[in-house]
Amino acid sequence: MSKVSTPPEPPADAEVTRGLEHPLPAGMRDLLPEEAWSRRTLARIVLQRFVLHGYAAVALPAFEFADVLERGLGTLDPEEVLRFVEPESGAVAALRPDMTPQIARLVATRLRGRPPPYRLAYEGTVLRRRSGRARKHKQIPQVGFELLGVAGPEGDLELLAVAVDALRAAGLEDFAVDVGDAGIMRALLRDVPGGAAQALSSALGKRDEYEVEVVCREAGIPHAALLRELLHLHGGRDAVLEGQRLLAGTGAAEAAARLLELYDGATSRGLAPRLTADLGDVRGFAYYTGPLFHVFADGPGEALGSGGRYDELLGRFRAPMPAAGFAVDLDRLAWALRSAGRLPSPEPSVVLVGAEGARAAMLREQGLSVVCAPAWDDAIHYARGWGHTFVVGDDAALHVATSLCCRG
Amino acid sequence: MSKVSTPPEPPADAEVTRGLEHPLPAGMRDLLPEEAWSRRTLARIVLQRFVLHGYAAVALPAFEFADVLERGLGTLDPEEVLRFVEPESGAVAALRPDMTPQIARLVATRLRGRPPPYRLAYEGTVLRRRSGRARKHKQIPQVGFELLGVAGPEGDLELLAVAVDALRAAGLEDFAVDVGDAGIMRALLRDVPGGAAQALSSALGKRDEYEVEVVCREAGIPHAALLRELLHLHGGRDAVLEGQRLLAGTGAAEAAARLLELYDGATSRGLAPRLTADLGDVRGFAYYTGPLFHVFADGPGEALGSGGRYDELLGRFRAPMPAAGFAVDLDRLAWALRSAGRLPSPEPSVVLVGAEGARAAMLREQGLSVVCAPAWDDAIHYARGWGHTFVVGDDAALHVATSLCCRG
Repeated sequence: MSKVSTPPEPPADAEVTRGLEHPLPAGMRDLLPEEAWSRRTLARIVLQRFVLHGYAAVALPAFEFADVLERGLGTLDPEEVLRFVEPESGAVAALRPDMTPQIARLVATRLRGRPPPYRLAYEGTVLRRRSGRARKHKQIPQVGFELLGVAGPEGDLELLAVAVDALRAAGLEDFAVDVGDAGIMRALLRDVPGGAAQALSSALGKRDEYEVEVVCREAGIPHAALLRELLHLHGGRDAVLEGQRLLAGTGAAEAAARLLELYDGATSRGLAPRLTADLGDVRGFAYYTGPLFHVFADGPGEALGSGGRYDELLGRFRAPMPAAGFAVDLDRLAWALRSAGRLPSPEPSVVLVGAEGARAAMLREQGLSVVCAPAWDDAIHYARGWGHTFVVGDDAALHVATSLCCRG
Repeated sequence: MSKVSTPPEPPADAEVTRGLEHPLPAGMRDLLPEEAWSRRTLARIVLQRFVLHGYAAVALPAFEFADVLERGLGTLDPEEVLRFVEPESGAVAALRPDMTPQIARLVATRLRGRPPPYRLAYEGTVLRRRSGRARKHKQIPQVGFELLGVAGPEGDLELLAVAVDALRAAGLEDFAVDVGDAGIMRALLRDVPGGAAQALSSALGKRDEYEVEVVCREAGIPHAALLRELLHLHGGRDAVLEGQRLLAGTGAAEAAARLLELYDGATSRGLAPRLTADLGDVRGFAYYTGPLFHVFADGPGEALGSGGRYDELLGRFRAPMPAAGFAVDLDRLAWALRSAGRLPSPEPSVVLVGAEGARAAMLREQGLSVVCAPAWDDAIHYARGWGHTFVVGDDAALHVATSLCCRG
């Protein structure tokens, strides 16, 4: 059922309110009722789907000591993380830029006594400072899940199957799953010294062939031609096979074989409407060690969901075990669903002409949202302003969007 | 259906994890699956009940510029608020200690064009630094609603009716609603200079008669005897009548009359299992101007829900209008429900012996959470460790809590 008026598209960030009297920090924003409803609904659907697959939802604090989170992220990039001095301890705290290290901490401490595998889900907002690009969000609403204690393809395919099932449950039909393997670049960059490796990762991340060439020449890194070729290896099974051929004899051969196995496993289980492979993927390089997943759909320019395997992270919390996880960006999922005309519509709601009483209570017992207004005119005005579906009087009901009136 | 083993009571705060390898900042904590489930369930039930009454849920950012929040709170007490320098702007930001000023800001800006009254609901965590008492929480999960644009008893009684209905929907049966009026103390303290007023509020808040006497004497404040008497005026309609008698002829006579009207209105509408009045209430003194509500039940020592009228707050955002709001503390609500044996139980869930496949999918389609384990022994161990209800094999099912096995 559609609402009386199309609600205004929400601004991409707080720019709109910045000029006003009561500004918000850059990247922070309010969600008006329509958008808050769809975010809440999508979060519930996706999280509930993780729960149906046996994942137990936990809740994690919005900030932690930076040095604890750092164990999970390597050194936090100060450009990306909002840090502050926690007044009680005088220690530096960070608003979490990612929830996976928090899950790792939880498994390594309070959940350690429970039998593996650990299947955990979460919902929450992460905070990332804007990087170079100007309109990047700061507050990212996520729903995610982590599978800890299951190694290799068995874990990877469970992860992918659950992720895809949850996105389908949210209404997403047409999407592409892009698979990669962090092990490829890890192996090729193994002997590259720290500074050069960072410069190279950055160049690879931008898919800038020229910069890759320059960094390799200046730092004396081998494989320059190979790295440049990998940047173009994005496509179907042929791309994976070509990658395997190129990487034969290098330290990355094992990762390339793993990627083919994953690709074939995902294909045979029908895990995505479209499946592609990206041999030059360096996204999420910080803690991923194996398979990488990114889900794309029309609308948002960037992945609406992503994840991968991080077999070394738990060791940093002294609880070594294989692990993999996946998180959905709810803003981007909503964007993709809106583009596809499949964003869920709010439940019908009623403005009742008259005073609170038995009739309002009866409609509420049927699950309808009901608010009362003294007269027809007020009720119609109120319904139009707030997107209520029906105005109901003593002897007539009006569908506000269609203006169809029925007398009873 | 009960779970296999009683989950350990969660620690009251992070003290337990403090000594471990990966500490959390004081007052921050994780919620393990059992507790996360009940918090999420209670939040959904209470918020959904507000929505049924026509309140539209919005989402608000976790931190804002301190000077914007300050417009709502008066000057933020630096002891209670966690502030930090927002790196993009260099301005001081505060993790919200309260969501009501954010709602006021939203109504004064992006919702201003919609027809009043404004009925808004929200869910989120507020952060308050520990005050004197050692074990006070820092992270408070709240669900609340605000009614803006409806003055006087009509608004007050709608607020109370919706609050009470939502608490009943969450399963709370036996509770007391304590009503007060911020106008009483406001009127009596009107001519008291700032510093003395603060000292007096603090003494009144502690119900410390001796300190009240001392502050009044030192600052030359009249009404010392009256103030001391009000501290004891807590009870039924008689207490309200006695207050009215005591306050006749003072600036607080009007507020006392209003309190009687509210008390009688709430009684005649049957709005609480138990109704009491507190004439000496100074809680939430910062922005409340009229009626105050606190809901108490066995278990938590403090109010599990509270609210009141704040007719002057919106004026500070240049959108003057009468307003009132109410918020539920989800941790305390869970505590009260647990004490009453009425905390909702998780849905039944299944560990299936065998591999993922059609049977697991079928059970999930029926809404059951299903996870697979290779053999009976593993499945039983896993179910006990994670609180799953049933273990289901090819030809038998075991209820883990009762150890009752049925063969099919």
